Amino acid sequence: MRTRLKREAPDPLYTQLKAALVGEIQAGRFRPHDRIPSERELSTQFRVSRMTARQALLDLVREGALYTRVGKGTFVAQPKIEQPLRSLTGFSQDMQARNTRPGSRILEARTVSATPEVAAALRLLPEDEVILLHRLRLADGEPLALETAYLPLALCPGLLAHDFARESLYAVLEGNYGFTLTHAEQTLEAALAGPRELELLNLTPPAAVQHIQRLTFRQDGTPVEYVFSTYRGDRYKFRSVLQTGSG
Amino acid sequence: MRTRLKREAPDPLYTQLKAALVGEIQAGRFRPHDRIPSERELSTQFRVSRMTARQALLDLVREGALYTRVGKGTFVAQPKIEQPLRSLTGFSQDMQARNTRPGSRILEARTVSATPEVAAALRLLPEDEVILLHRLRLADGEPLALETAYLPLALCPGLLAHDFARESLYAVLEGNYGFTLTHAEQTLEAALAGPRELELLNLTPPAAVQHIQRLTFRQDGTPVEYVFSTYRGDRYKFRSVLQTGSG
Repeated sequence: MRTRLKREAPDPLYTQLKAALVGEIQAGRFRPHDRIPSERELSTQFRVSRMTARQALLDLVREGALYTRVGKGTFVAQPKIEQPLRSLTGFSQDMQARNTRPGSRILEARTVSATPEVAAALRLLPEDEVILLHRLRLADGEPLALETAYLPLALCPGLLAHDFARESLYAVLEGNYGFTLTHAEQTLEAALAGPRELELLNLTPPAAVQHIQRLTFRQDGTPVEYVFSTYRGDRYKFRSVLQTGSG
Repeated sequence: MRTRLKREAPDPLYTQLKAALVGEIQAGRFRPHDRIPSERELSTQFRVSRMTARQALLDLVREGALYTRVGKGTFVAQPKIEQPLRSLTGFSQDMQARNTRPGSRILEARTVSATPEVAAALRLLPEDEVILLHRLRLADGEPLALETAYLPLALCPGLLAHDFARESLYAVLEGNYGFTLTHAEQTLEAALAGPRELELLNLTPPAAVQHIQRLTFRQDGTPVEYVFSTYRGDRYKFRSVLQTGSG
Protein backbone atom coordinates (compact mmCIF):
# COMPACT_ATOMS: atom_id res chain seq x y z
CA MET A 1 0.00 0.00 0.00
CA ARG A 2 1.18 3.46 -0.86
CA THR A 3 -0.13 5.75 1.84
CA ARG A 4 2.13 6.83 4.70
CA LEU A 5 0.57 7.76 8.00
CA LYS A 6 1.47 11.13 9.44
CA ARG A 7 2.63 10.83 12.99
CA GLU A 8 2.46 14.60 13.54
CA ALA A 9 -1.12 14.90 12.15
CA PRO A 10 -4.03 15.77 14.46
CA ASP A 11 -6.05 12.73 13.24
CA PRO A 12 -5.47 9.57 15.31
CA LEU A 13 -3.41 6.89 13.56
CA TYR A 14 -6.32 4.41 13.40
CA THR A 15 -8.44 7.00 11.53
CA GLN A 16 -5.60 7.51 9.07
CA LEU A 17 -5.21 3.75 8.66
CA LYS A 18 -8.96 3.39 8.00
CA ALA A 19 -8.80 6.14 5.36
CA ALA A 20 -5.79 4.42 3.76
CA LEU A 21 -7.61 1.08 3.54
CA VAL A 22 -10.78 2.71 2.17
CA GLY A 23 -8.62 4.51 -0.38
CA GLU A 24 -7.11 1.21 -1.54
CA ILE A 25 -10.58 -0.29 -1.91
CA GLN A 26 -11.92 2.72 -3.81
CA ALA A 27 -8.92 2.68 -6.10
CA GLY A 28 -9.68 -0.97 -6.89
CA ARG A 29 -6.42 -2.32 -5.45
CA PHE A 30 -8.56 -4.49 -3.18
CA ARG A 31 -11.68 -5.95 -4.82
CA PRO A 32 -14.87 -7.34 -3.18
CA HIS A 33 -14.10 -10.60 -1.31
CA ASP A 34 -10.31 -10.01 -1.43
CA ARG A 35 -8.55 -10.75 1.85
CA ILE A 36 -7.24 -7.65 3.67
CA PRO A 37 -3.82 -7.94 5.41
CA SER A 38 -4.11 -9.16 9.00
CA GLU A 39 -3.67 -7.02 12.13
CA ARG A 40 -0.09 -8.25 12.36
CA GLU A 41 0.67 -7.50 8.71
CA LEU A 42 -0.91 -4.05 8.90
CA SER A 43 0.97 -3.18 12.06
CA THR A 44 4.31 -4.05 10.42
CA GLN A 45 3.50 -2.38 7.14
CA PHE A 46 2.22 0.90 8.63
CA ARG A 47 4.44 0.87 11.73
CA VAL A 48 1.52 1.09 14.16
CA SER A 49 0.59 -1.00 17.20
CA ARG A 50 -1.58 -4.10 16.83
CA MET A 51 -4.23 -2.24 18.85
CA THR A 52 -4.30 0.53 16.25
CA ALA A 53 -4.58 -1.97 13.40
CA ARG A 54 -7.32 -3.88 15.26
CA GLN A 55 -9.32 -0.71 15.93
CA ALA A 56 -9.18 0.28 12.24
CA LEU A 57 -10.33 -3.20 11.12
CA LEU A 58 -13.12 -3.40 13.74
CA ASP A 59 -14.44 0.01 12.72
CA LEU A 60 -14.46 -0.91 9.03
CA VAL A 61 -16.30 -4.16 9.77
CA ARG A 62 -18.91 -2.29 11.83
CA GLU A 63 -19.30 0.26 9.06
CA GLY A 64 -19.81 -2.50 6.51
CA ALA A 65 -16.73 -1.90 4.35
CA LEU A 66 -15.13 -5.21 5.48
CA TYR A 67 -16.41 -8.51 6.81
CA THR A 68 -14.74 -11.28 8.80
CA ARG A 69 -14.89 -15.05 8.49
CA VAL A 70 -13.86 -16.81 11.67
CA GLY A 71 -10.46 -18.48 11.23
CA LYS A 72 -10.12 -17.12 7.69
CA GLY A 73 -9.47 -13.41 8.04
CA THR A 74 -10.98 -10.09 7.02
CA PHE A 75 -12.32 -9.45 3.53
CA VAL A 76 -13.60 -6.58 1.41
CA ALA A 77 -17.42 -6.37 1.46
CA GLN A 78 -19.47 -6.11 -1.69
CA PRO A 79 -20.52 -2.52 -2.42
CA LYS A 80 -24.04 -1.80 -1.19
CA ILE A 81 -27.01 -1.68 -3.52
CA GLU A 82 -28.03 1.95 -4.12
CA GLN A 83 -31.79 2.30 -4.14
CA PRO A 84 -33.34 5.62 -5.21
CA LEU A 85 -36.13 6.94 -2.97
CA ARG A 86 -37.88 8.73 -5.77
CA SER A 87 -39.29 6.25 -8.25
CA LEU A 88 -42.03 3.77 -7.45
CA THR A 89 -40.72 0.38 -8.47
CA GLY A 90 -41.04 -3.12 -7.10
CA PHE A 91 -38.26 -5.42 -5.99
CA SER A 92 -38.38 -7.57 -9.17
CA GLN A 93 -38.02 -4.54 -11.41
CA ASP A 94 -35.19 -3.13 -9.24
CA MET A 95 -33.24 -6.37 -9.49
CA GLN A 96 -33.78 -6.75 -13.23
CA ALA A 97 -32.49 -3.18 -13.72
CA ARG A 98 -29.28 -4.33 -11.97
CA ASN A 99 -28.92 -7.47 -14.07
CA THR A 100 -29.47 -9.70 -11.08
CA ARG A 101 -32.02 -12.49 -11.02
CA PRO A 102 -34.91 -11.67 -8.65
CA GLY A 103 -36.41 -14.53 -6.67
CA SER A 104 -38.85 -14.98 -3.82
CA ARG A 105 -39.63 -17.56 -1.20
CA ILE A 106 -43.28 -17.43 -0.15
CA LEU A 107 -43.47 -17.52 3.64
CA GLU A 108 -47.21 -16.92 3.85
CA ALA A 109 -49.96 -16.20 1.30
CA ARG A 110 -53.54 -16.20 2.55
CA THR A 111 -56.64 -14.13 3.24
CA VAL A 112 -56.93 -12.61 6.73
CA SER A 113 -59.14 -10.03 8.40
CA ALA A 114 -57.54 -6.59 8.58
CA THR A 115 -56.07 -5.38 11.87
CA PRO A 116 -57.23 -1.87 12.84
CA GLU A 117 -53.93 -0.40 11.56
CA VAL A 118 -54.09 -2.15 8.16
CA ALA A 119 -57.79 -1.30 7.80
CA ALA A 120 -57.16 2.39 8.55
CA ALA A 121 -54.30 2.62 6.03
CA LEU A 122 -56.23 0.85 3.24
CA ARG A 123 -59.47 2.73 4.08
CA LEU A 124 -61.32 -0.48 4.93
CA LEU A 125 -63.49 -1.43 7.87
CA PRO A 126 -61.72 -3.36 10.62
CA GLU A 127 -62.11 -7.08 9.97
CA ASP A 128 -62.60 -6.54 6.20
CA GLU A 129 -60.75 -9.24 4.33
CA VAL A 130 -57.26 -8.53 3.02
CA ILE A 131 -54.70 -10.61 1.18
CA LEU A 132 -51.50 -11.17 3.13
CA LEU A 133 -48.40 -11.91 1.06
CA HIS A 134 -45.22 -12.50 3.06
CA ARG A 135 -42.10 -13.08 0.99
CA LEU A 136 -38.36 -13.40 1.36
CA ARG A 137 -36.83 -11.51 -1.55
CA LEU A 138 -33.64 -12.81 -3.13
CA ALA A 139 -31.18 -11.57 -5.75
CA ASP A 140 -29.10 -14.25 -7.45
CA GLY A 141 -30.12 -16.48 -4.55
CA GLU A 142 -28.89 -14.09 -1.81
CA PRO A 143 -31.60 -13.04 0.70
CA LEU A 144 -31.86 -9.23 0.70
CA ALA A 145 -35.26 -8.29 2.12
CA LEU A 146 -38.42 -9.46 3.82
CA GLU A 147 -41.75 -8.08 2.68
CA THR A 148 -45.26 -8.40 4.10
CA ALA A 149 -47.88 -6.86 1.83
CA TYR A 150 -51.60 -6.38 2.58
CA LEU A 151 -54.06 -5.77 -0.28
CA PRO A 152 -57.86 -5.33 -0.12
CA LEU A 153 -59.39 -8.64 -1.22
CA ALA A 154 -62.34 -6.83 -2.82
CA LEU A 155 -60.00 -5.02 -5.24
CA CYS A 156 -58.06 -8.05 -6.39
CA PRO A 157 -60.07 -11.25 -5.94
CA GLY A 158 -58.24 -14.34 -7.10
CA LEU A 159 -54.85 -12.72 -6.68
CA LEU A 160 -53.48 -15.68 -4.71
CA ALA A 161 -53.94 -17.96 -7.73
CA HIS A 162 -50.71 -16.40 -9.04
CA ASP A 163 -47.34 -17.86 -8.13
CA PHE A 164 -45.57 -14.96 -6.44
CA ALA A 165 -42.44 -17.00 -5.96
CA ARG A 166 -41.87 -16.26 -9.64
CA GLU A 167 -44.27 -13.49 -10.65
CA SER A 168 -43.92 -9.80 -9.81
CA LEU A 169 -46.84 -8.49 -7.70
CA TYR A 170 -46.76 -5.11 -9.42
CA ALA A 171 -46.70 -6.71 -12.88
CA VAL A 172 -49.80 -8.80 -11.98
CA LEU A 173 -51.65 -5.80 -10.50
CA GLU A 174 -50.96 -3.79 -13.63
CA GLY A 175 -51.29 -6.55 -16.22
CA ASN A 176 -54.16 -8.65 -14.82
CA TYR A 177 -56.15 -6.19 -12.72
CA GLY A 178 -55.69 -3.03 -14.82
CA PHE A 179 -54.22 -0.98 -11.97
CA THR A 180 -51.91 1.91 -12.76
CA LEU A 181 -49.77 2.44 -9.68
CA THR A 182 -49.11 6.17 -9.45
CA HIS A 183 -47.34 6.91 -6.18
CA ALA A 184 -46.49 5.67 -2.71
CA GLU A 185 -45.80 7.14 0.71
CA GLN A 186 -42.89 5.53 2.48
CA THR A 187 -41.08 5.75 5.82
CA LEU A 188 -37.63 4.40 6.69
CA GLU A 189 -36.44 3.51 10.18
CA ALA A 190 -33.12 2.05 11.31
CA ALA A 191 -33.74 -0.89 13.66
CA LEU A 192 -32.06 -3.94 15.15
CA ALA A 193 -32.94 -7.17 13.38
CA GLY A 194 -35.21 -9.46 15.41
CA PRO A 195 -34.62 -13.23 15.71
CA ARG A 196 -36.69 -14.15 12.66
CA GLU A 197 -35.17 -11.38 10.53
CA LEU A 198 -31.67 -12.55 11.51
CA GLU A 199 -32.46 -16.10 10.54
CA LEU A 200 -34.23 -15.43 7.23
CA LEU A 201 -31.82 -12.73 6.07
CA ASN A 202 -28.81 -14.77 7.12
CA LEU A 203 -27.39 -12.10 9.46
CA THR A 204 -25.17 -12.39 12.54
CA PRO A 205 -26.54 -10.57 15.61
CA PRO A 206 -26.49 -7.75 16.43
CA ALA A 207 -27.36 -6.48 12.94
CA ALA A 208 -28.93 -3.23 11.76
CA VAL A 209 -31.74 -3.26 9.21
CA GLN A 210 -33.92 -0.73 7.47
CA HIS A 211 -37.63 -1.02 8.30
CA ILE A 212 -39.67 0.37 5.44
CA GLN A 213 -43.38 0.95 5.46
CA ARG A 214 -45.06 1.76 2.15
CA LEU A 215 -48.60 2.71 1.17
CA THR A 216 -49.12 2.45 -2.58
CA PHE A 217 -51.89 4.24 -4.52
CA ARG A 218 -53.43 3.60 -7.93
CA GLN A 219 -54.66 6.13 -10.50
CA ASP A 220 -57.99 6.90 -8.78
CA GLY A 221 -56.28 7.71 -5.46
CA THR A 222 -57.28 4.42 -3.76
CA PRO A 223 -54.60 2.86 -1.54
CA VAL A 224 -54.10 -0.67 -2.89
CA GLU A 225 -51.13 -2.03 -0.98
CA TYR A 226 -49.72 -1.56 2.51
CA VAL A 227 -46.28 -3.12 2.91
CA PHE A 228 -43.89 -3.68 5.79
CA SER A 229 -40.36 -4.51 4.65
CA THR A 230 -37.01 -5.23 6.23
CA TYR A 231 -33.96 -4.49 4.10
CA ARG A 232 -30.48 -5.65 5.09
CA GLY A 233 -28.48 -2.72 6.43
CA ASP A 234 -25.21 -4.24 5.21
CA ARG A 235 -26.44 -4.53 1.61
CA TYR A 236 -28.55 -1.40 1.04
CA LYS A 237 -28.01 2.31 0.78
CA PHE A 238 -31.00 4.57 -0.01
CA ARG A 239 -30.53 7.69 -2.06
CA SER A 240 -32.64 10.85 -2.16
CA VAL A 241 -32.38 14.34 -3.62
CA LEU A 242 -33.45 17.26 -1.46
CA GLN A 243 -34.52 20.62 -2.88
CA THR A 244 -35.10 23.95 -1.22
CA GLY A 245 -38.67 25.07 -0.88
CA SER A 246 -40.24 21.66 -1.58
CA GLY A 247 -41.16 21.09 2.05
CA MET B 1 -57.83 -2.72 28.01
CA ARG B 2 -60.68 -3.57 25.71
CA THR B 3 -59.31 -5.96 23.14
CA ARG B 4 -59.90 -9.70 23.50
CA LEU B 5 -57.43 -12.07 21.96
CA LYS B 6 -58.82 -14.72 19.62
CA ARG B 7 -57.64 -18.15 20.60
CA GLU B 8 -58.89 -19.66 17.33
CA ALA B 9 -57.18 -17.02 15.11
CA PRO B 10 -54.25 -17.97 12.88
CA ASP B 11 -52.09 -15.13 14.33
CA PRO B 12 -50.01 -16.16 17.35
CA LEU B 13 -51.22 -14.76 20.68
CA TYR B 14 -48.10 -12.61 21.19
CA THR B 15 -48.74 -10.90 17.83
CA GLN B 16 -52.32 -10.19 18.86
CA LEU B 17 -51.14 -8.87 22.23
CA LYS B 18 -48.62 -6.58 20.49
CA ALA B 19 -51.38 -5.26 18.21
CA ALA B 20 -53.64 -4.70 21.24
CA LEU B 21 -50.93 -2.70 23.06
CA VAL B 22 -50.11 -0.66 19.95
CA GLY B 23 -53.84 0.02 19.53
CA GLU B 24 -54.08 1.34 23.10
CA ILE B 25 -51.10 3.64 22.50
CA GLN B 26 -52.49 4.91 19.18
CA ALA B 27 -55.87 5.54 20.78
CA GLY B 28 -54.10 7.66 23.42
CA ARG B 29 -55.09 5.42 26.35
CA PHE B 30 -51.36 5.09 27.07
CA ARG B 31 -49.35 8.29 26.59
CA PRO B 32 -45.58 8.72 26.08
CA HIS B 33 -43.66 7.80 29.27
CA ASP B 34 -46.71 6.06 30.83
CA ARG B 35 -45.90 2.75 32.46
CA ILE B 36 -47.25 -0.32 30.61
CA PRO B 37 -48.65 -3.21 32.74
CA SER B 38 -45.98 -5.73 33.70
CA GLU B 39 -45.58 -9.22 32.20
CA ARG B 40 -47.47 -10.61 35.17
CA GLU B 41 -50.31 -8.08 34.87
CA LEU B 42 -50.61 -8.59 31.10
CA SER B 43 -50.67 -12.38 31.46
CA THR B 44 -53.55 -12.17 33.96
CA GLN B 45 -55.47 -9.54 32.04
CA PHE B 46 -55.22 -11.24 28.61
CA ARG B 47 -55.14 -14.83 29.93
CA VAL B 48 -51.86 -15.67 28.23
CA SER B 49 -48.63 -17.21 29.55
CA ARG B 50 -45.87 -15.00 30.99
CA MET B 51 -43.72 -16.12 28.03
CA THR B 52 -46.29 -14.74 25.60
CA ALA B 53 -46.49 -11.44 27.49
CA ARG B 54 -42.69 -11.24 27.65
CA GLN B 55 -42.32 -11.88 23.93
CA ALA B 56 -44.81 -9.12 23.09
CA LEU B 57 -43.02 -6.62 25.37
CA LEU B 58 -39.54 -7.56 24.10
CA ASP B 59 -40.66 -7.15 20.48
CA LEU B 60 -42.20 -3.75 21.16
CA VAL B 61 -39.03 -2.58 22.93
CA ARG B 62 -36.91 -3.73 20.00
CA GLU B 63 -39.24 -2.00 17.56
CA GLY B 64 -38.99 1.23 19.57
CA ALA B 65 -42.64 1.50 20.68
CA LEU B 66 -41.71 0.87 24.34
CA TYR B 67 -38.58 1.32 26.44
CA THR B 68 -37.50 -0.26 29.74
CA ARG B 69 -35.86 1.23 32.81
CA VAL B 70 -34.12 -1.39 34.93
CA GLY B 71 -36.06 -2.00 38.13
CA LYS B 72 -38.79 0.42 37.13
CA GLY B 73 -40.75 -1.29 34.36
CA THR B 74 -41.68 -0.76 30.73
CA PHE B 75 -42.87 2.58 29.38
CA VAL B 76 -44.37 4.04 26.23
CA ALA B 77 -41.69 5.63 24.01
CA GLN B 78 -42.03 9.09 22.57
CA PRO B 79 -43.28 9.03 18.99
CA LYS B 80 -40.42 9.30 16.50
CA ILE B 81 -39.61 12.54 14.73
CA GLU B 82 -40.79 12.35 11.10
CA GLN B 83 -38.28 13.93 8.80
CA PRO B 84 -39.20 14.47 5.13
CA LEU B 85 -36.58 13.41 2.57
CA ARG B 86 -37.64 16.00 0.06
CA SER B 87 -36.87 19.46 1.32
CA LEU B 88 -33.38 20.76 1.97
CA THR B 89 -33.36 22.11 5.51
CA GLY B 90 -30.85 22.17 8.32
CA PHE B 91 -31.21 20.71 11.78
CA SER B 92 -31.89 24.11 13.45
CA GLN B 93 -34.70 24.90 11.02
CA ASP B 94 -36.20 21.39 11.42
CA MET B 95 -36.30 21.73 15.19
CA GLN B 96 -37.75 25.23 15.10
CA ALA B 97 -40.52 23.99 12.78
CA ARG B 98 -41.37 21.44 15.52
CA ASN B 99 -41.37 24.01 18.31
CA THR B 100 -38.38 22.43 19.98
CA ARG B 101 -35.29 24.38 20.95
CA PRO B 102 -32.30 23.39 18.76
CA GLY B 103 -28.89 23.28 20.43
CA SER B 104 -25.40 22.09 19.58
CA ARG B 105 -22.30 21.04 21.40
CA ILE B 106 -19.17 21.72 19.35
CA LEU B 107 -16.96 18.65 19.41
CA GLU B 108 -14.42 19.93 16.91
CA ALA B 109 -14.14 23.07 14.76
CA ARG B 110 -10.91 23.61 12.87
CA THR B 111 -9.22 23.75 9.50
CA VAL B 112 -7.81 20.48 8.15
CA SER B 113 -6.46 19.24 4.82
CA ALA B 114 -9.03 17.32 2.79
CA THR B 115 -8.84 13.54 2.64
CA PRO B 116 -9.03 12.15 -0.93
CA GLU B 117 -12.74 11.31 -0.41
CA VAL B 118 -13.69 14.78 0.88
CA ALA B 119 -11.59 16.46 -1.82
CA ALA B 120 -13.28 14.41 -4.57
CA ALA B 121 -16.80 15.20 -3.30
CA LEU B 122 -16.14 18.94 -2.91
CA ARG B 123 -14.18 19.08 -6.22
CA LEU B 124 -10.98 20.19 -4.50
CA LEU B 125 -7.41 18.96 -4.78
CA PRO B 126 -6.36 16.45 -2.11
CA GLU B 127 -4.78 18.31 0.80
CA ASP B 128 -6.68 21.55 -0.03
CA GLU B 129 -7.84 23.15 3.19
CA VAL B 130 -11.37 22.50 4.42
CA ILE B 131 -13.27 23.57 7.50
CA LEU B 132 -14.29 20.66 9.75
CA LEU B 133 -17.29 21.28 11.98
CA HIS B 134 -18.23 18.35 14.23
CA ARG B 135 -21.32 18.91 16.36
CA LEU B 136 -23.67 17.03 18.64
CA ARG B 137 -27.19 18.23 17.80
CA LEU B 138 -29.73 18.55 20.56
CA ALA B 139 -33.46 19.28 20.78
CA ASP B 140 -34.68 20.63 24.10
CA GLY B 141 -31.41 19.33 25.53
CA GLU B 142 -31.85 15.74 24.23
CA PRO B 143 -29.03 14.49 21.96
CA LEU B 144 -30.51 13.43 18.60
CA ALA B 145 -27.74 13.44 16.02
CA LEU B 146 -24.03 13.78 15.35
CA GLU B 147 -22.87 15.79 12.37
CA THR B 148 -19.45 16.23 10.78
CA ALA B 149 -19.47 18.83 8.02
CA TYR B 150 -16.62 19.69 5.65
CA LEU B 151 -16.66 22.99 3.74
CA PRO B 152 -14.04 24.40 1.34
CA LEU B 153 -12.08 27.04 3.27
CA ALA B 154 -11.62 29.12 0.11
CA LEU B 155 -15.41 29.55 -0.22
CA CYS B 156 -16.08 30.60 3.35
CA PRO B 157 -12.97 32.12 4.96
CA GLY B 158 -13.55 33.25 8.52
CA LEU B 159 -16.48 30.86 9.00
CA LEU B 160 -15.08 29.54 12.28
CA ALA B 161 -15.38 32.98 13.86
CA HIS B 162 -19.09 32.17 14.25
CA ASP B 163 -20.37 30.38 17.32
CA PHE B 164 -22.01 27.26 15.87
CA ALA B 165 -23.10 26.11 19.30
CA ARG B 166 -25.82 28.73 18.87
CA GLU B 167 -25.88 29.77 15.21
CA SER B 168 -27.29 27.76 12.30
CA LEU B 169 -24.62 26.89 9.70
CA TYR B 170 -27.11 27.26 6.84
CA ALA B 171 -28.32 30.64 8.14
CA VAL B 172 -24.69 31.90 8.28
CA LEU B 173 -23.89 30.54 4.78
CA GLU B 174 -26.95 32.26 3.35
CA GLY B 175 -26.90 35.43 5.48
CA ASN B 176 -23.17 36.17 5.73
CA TYR B 177 -21.69 34.53 2.63
CA GLY B 178 -24.52 35.12 0.18
CA PHE B 179 -24.95 31.43 -0.70
CA THR B 180 -28.32 30.18 -1.90
CA LEU B 181 -28.43 26.50 -1.13
CA THR B 182 -30.42 24.85 -3.91
CA HIS B 183 -30.26 21.09 -3.50
CA ALA B 184 -28.45 18.17 -1.90
CA GLU B 185 -27.76 14.52 -2.68
CA GLN B 186 -28.19 12.25 0.28
CA THR B 187 -27.76 8.58 1.18
CA LEU B 188 -29.19 6.73 4.19
CA GLU B 189 -27.76 3.54 5.67
CA ALA B 190 -28.90 1.58 8.71
CA ALA B 191 -25.90 0.78 10.92
CA LEU B 192 -24.95 -0.26 14.43
CA ALA B 193 -23.84 2.61 16.62
CA GLY B 194 -20.11 2.58 17.39
CA PRO B 195 -18.69 3.24 20.89
CA ARG B 196 -18.44 7.01 20.49
CA GLU B 197 -21.91 7.27 18.92
CA LEU B 198 -23.38 5.27 21.80
CA GLU B 199 -21.75 7.55 24.35
CA LEU B 200 -22.56 10.90 22.74
CA LEU B 201 -26.12 9.98 21.72
CA ASN B 202 -26.82 8.39 25.09
CA LEU B 203 -27.75 4.97 23.65
CA THR B 204 -27.55 1.49 25.18
CA PRO B 205 -25.72 -1.06 22.98
CA PRO B 206 -26.57 -2.65 20.66
CA ALA B 207 -28.38 0.28 19.02
CA ALA B 208 -29.33 0.98 15.42
CA VAL B 209 -28.67 4.37 13.87
CA GLN B 210 -29.17 6.02 10.52
CA HIS B 211 -25.92 7.05 8.79
CA ILE B 212 -26.62 9.93 6.45
CA GLN B 213 -24.20 11.38 3.97
CA ARG B 214 -25.12 14.65 2.29
CA LEU B 215 -23.52 16.75 -0.44
CA THR B 216 -25.07 20.22 -0.60
CA PHE B 217 -24.91 22.51 -3.64
CA ARG B 218 -25.37 26.27 -4.03
CA GLN B 219 -26.99 28.21 -6.88
CA ASP B 220 -24.01 27.98 -9.29
CA GLY B 221 -23.81 24.18 -8.95
CA THR B 222 -20.72 24.20 -6.69
CA PRO B 223 -20.76 21.63 -3.86
CA VAL B 224 -20.28 23.65 -0.68
CA GLU B 225 -20.79 21.14 2.12
CA TYR B 226 -20.12 17.42 2.58
CA VAL B 227 -21.68 16.06 5.77
CA PHE B 228 -21.60 12.74 7.60
CA SER B 229 -24.38 12.41 10.17
CA THR B 230 -25.61 9.82 12.62
CA TYR B 231 -29.29 10.04 13.57
CA ARG B 232 -30.74 8.03 16.45
CA GLY B 233 -32.76 5.12 15.10
CA ASP B 234 -35.07 5.17 18.10
CA ARG B 235 -35.99 8.84 17.57
CA TYR B 236 -36.17 9.27 13.79
CA LYS B 237 -38.35 8.11 10.95
CA PHE B 238 -37.62 9.39 7.42
CA ARG B 239 -40.46 9.96 4.98
CA SER B 240 -40.39 9.99 1.19
CA VAL B 241 -42.90 10.03 -1.65
CA LEU B 242 -42.27 7.78 -4.63
CA GLN B 243 -43.74 8.41 -8.08
CA THR B 244 -43.89 6.22 -11.14
CA GLY B 245 -41.65 7.17 -14.00
CA SER B 246 -39.42 9.51 -12.00
CA GLY B 247 -36.55 7.04 -11.88
